[in-house]
Amino acid sequence: MPSWGLGIDLGGTNIKIAVVDELKGILFEDTQPTDVPSGPDGVVRQLAFMASELYQRATETLDAGEFAGIGLGAPGAVDAEKGTLSYPPNLPGWGRVALRDELRLRLEEAHSLSSPVIIENDANAAAYGEAIFGGGNAFRDFMLVTLGTGVGGGIILDRKLYRGPTGTAGEIGFMIVDFEGESVHAGIRGTIEGLIGKERIVEMACSEQIGAERSPRLAELCNRDFSRLSPRHLEQAAREGDAAALRTWERIGTILGVGLANITALMDIRKFVIGGGIAAAGELIFKPAMMQLHRSTLPSMHDGLEIVPARLGNKAGIYGAAALCFNAAKPPASDA
Amino acid sequence: MPSWGLGIDLGGTNIKIAVVDELKGILFEDTQPTDVPSGPDGVVRQLAFMASELYQRATETLDAGEFAGIGLGAPGAVDAEKGTLSYPPNLPGWGRVALRDELRLRLEEAHSLSSPVIIENDANAAAYGEAIFGGGNAFRDFMLVTLGTGVGGGIILDRKLYRGPTGTAGEIGFMIVDFEGESVHAGIRGTIEGLIGKERIVEMACSEQIGAERSPRLAELCNRDFSRLSPRHLEQAAREGDAAALRTWERIGTILGVGLANITALMDIRKFVIGGGIAAAGELIFKPAMMQLHRSTLPSMHDGLEIVPARLGNKAGIYGAAALCFNAAKPPASDA
Repeated sequence: MPSWGLGIDLGGTNIKIAVVDELKGILFEDTQPTDVPSGPDGVVRQLAFMASELYQRATETLDAGEFAGIGLGAPGAVDAEKGTLSYPPNLPGWGRVALRDELRLRLEEAHSLSSPVIIENDANAAAYGEAIFGGGNAFRDFMLVTLGTGVGGGIILDRKLYRGPTGTAGEIGFMIVDFEGESVHAGIRGTIEGLIGKERIVEMACSEQIGAERSPRLAELCNRDFSRLSPRHLEQAAREGDAAALRTWERIGTILGVGLANITALMDIRKFVIGGGIAAAGELIFKPAMMQLHRSTLPSMHDGLEIVPARLGNKAGIYGAAALCFNAAKPPASDA
Repeated sequence: MPSWGLGIDLGGTNIKIAVVDELKGILFEDTQPTDVPSGPDGVVRQLAFMASELYQRATETLDAGEFAGIGLGAPGAVDAEKGTLSYPPNLPGWGRVALRDELRLRLEEAHSLSSPVIIENDANAAAYGEAIFGGGNAFRDFMLVTLGTGVGGGIILDRKLYRGPTGTAGEIGFMIVDFEGESVHAGIRGTIEGLIGKERIVEMACSEQIGAERSPRLAELCNRDFSRLSPRHLEQAAREGDAAALRTWERIGTILGVGLANITALMDIRKFVIGGGIAAAGELIFKPAMMQLHRSTLPSMHDGLEIVPARLGNKAGIYGAAALCFNAAKPPASDA
């Protein structure tokens, strides 16, 4: 029986929420600036208000009996079992919050809406979203890697989320590939995020390797103010054939490929779905990443290696959070 | 109901076989030089002969009705589902061999022994052995890392073997931690095995960092013939306080710690069981590894990190192979 649910993406800037149909995907959605100053209580009130409003709107056309629940993706350490969110990096001042139960209670008390609530780490939710609705749909096992301000990821094994023993799995950004290198990020030397996180990419482009004098086109794109150089500028310059920009993307892809090779060696995962803002550069990254992935793995491991783009953009988390409800609402299959 | 089985370790030099009791461990065992020249057919004959002989001996005192089966650990690519062994590195000339079915058939036809047979990659079998009988017994999730000629490993999740989608998971030796470094091993730059495999450890000790003139004790231990320097010499010198030897072990532990940190970041595994000949150096490796593991992970990941020695030595694979039979012989538990 197809069903529908609400998916929420709790960010430090915005709360995004959508009605997700199991077959048709997102039906309608809403976004509001996160009421950060009002703290956890205020944000829970806001979440409950937005959810109940969208639920009401949805039930004008959808069958309330097929409502699977509310899934919420949040940044930081989520204990999916206990329903807690601890010290979310983009919600300063939050400690450990029993987000799931507080939201459920608030929905019942203030809005008379009795609904299952599931919370999940946002990167995990995004991976699950891509697994069910997006770029990982064809894969039984894959890793979603998101390239943005940070580098994160989520792991799908046997079409299910792999959270790890304490729920923190998938931190490819903190994988070390250059333990004696110069880059130090969050106190750790040579991590993937320290090497190809957004800030570092811009630094790379500004570095002596491809300094202003070497690439007039890059200088032009950022109005000679390299502090304003963005990955978009780098992408544009590369598409126009700028050698310095092409070298930068090649290096980004190469380092990503080393990280993917480590995932293949350790977990035998051979399918990679790449998302996040930086991944918009597409083949500029994927091609050198694939070449490096081959160079960095034994020939006996080359079978089935694939790198594909994520397809849900910044809605992957909303999709995934809702999809987790579909799954939870169903009795376990008698045979996988 | 407790049961017993046969565990076999098929090596390029010896075949080791033992009767393993689910509660008491190894009861008796046998070792014979592997009849490599006779090829797959001859080795299957040899395996069947050794197994049936030990089975007969066992049933003089054990209940044949409680016999769980024969488990065989083999090096190289094992497809546990199909029962095949492909291109084992230490059995030259073998292609892809249907080892499980051929052994089962041979046991029936030549020895009238009808027995379930399970085959598994040797590193996976060793990890399972440590999980059930050894150093990983207290851990629900852990990784066994074996430090020897090569660096290998096996992953236990939720007390079960994690094989990965194609059965090759756990290759920590091919994890890259120094992608721009000088070391190249099996064509790949900066892998753990290339940095702390046995050969490299000896090279490290011979290198300029701690050359002969710097450590008279090391020179003495190998009779001034550094080509004969062994990890045992290094261990002895370190225990006597030799600074050069201590530095070498510290570096080995540090590099191991970086690799373990990557496993924690990616898989959220926080327990490590370290085996293999090199691991006999114990705290000389474990201490710097633990320090580096802390340095190389976020403070939020430090909870529960542990490094412990493996306990079954080179019998881990035999234990694990037999233990896989115990599990297969039982109906699935109704509740984990």
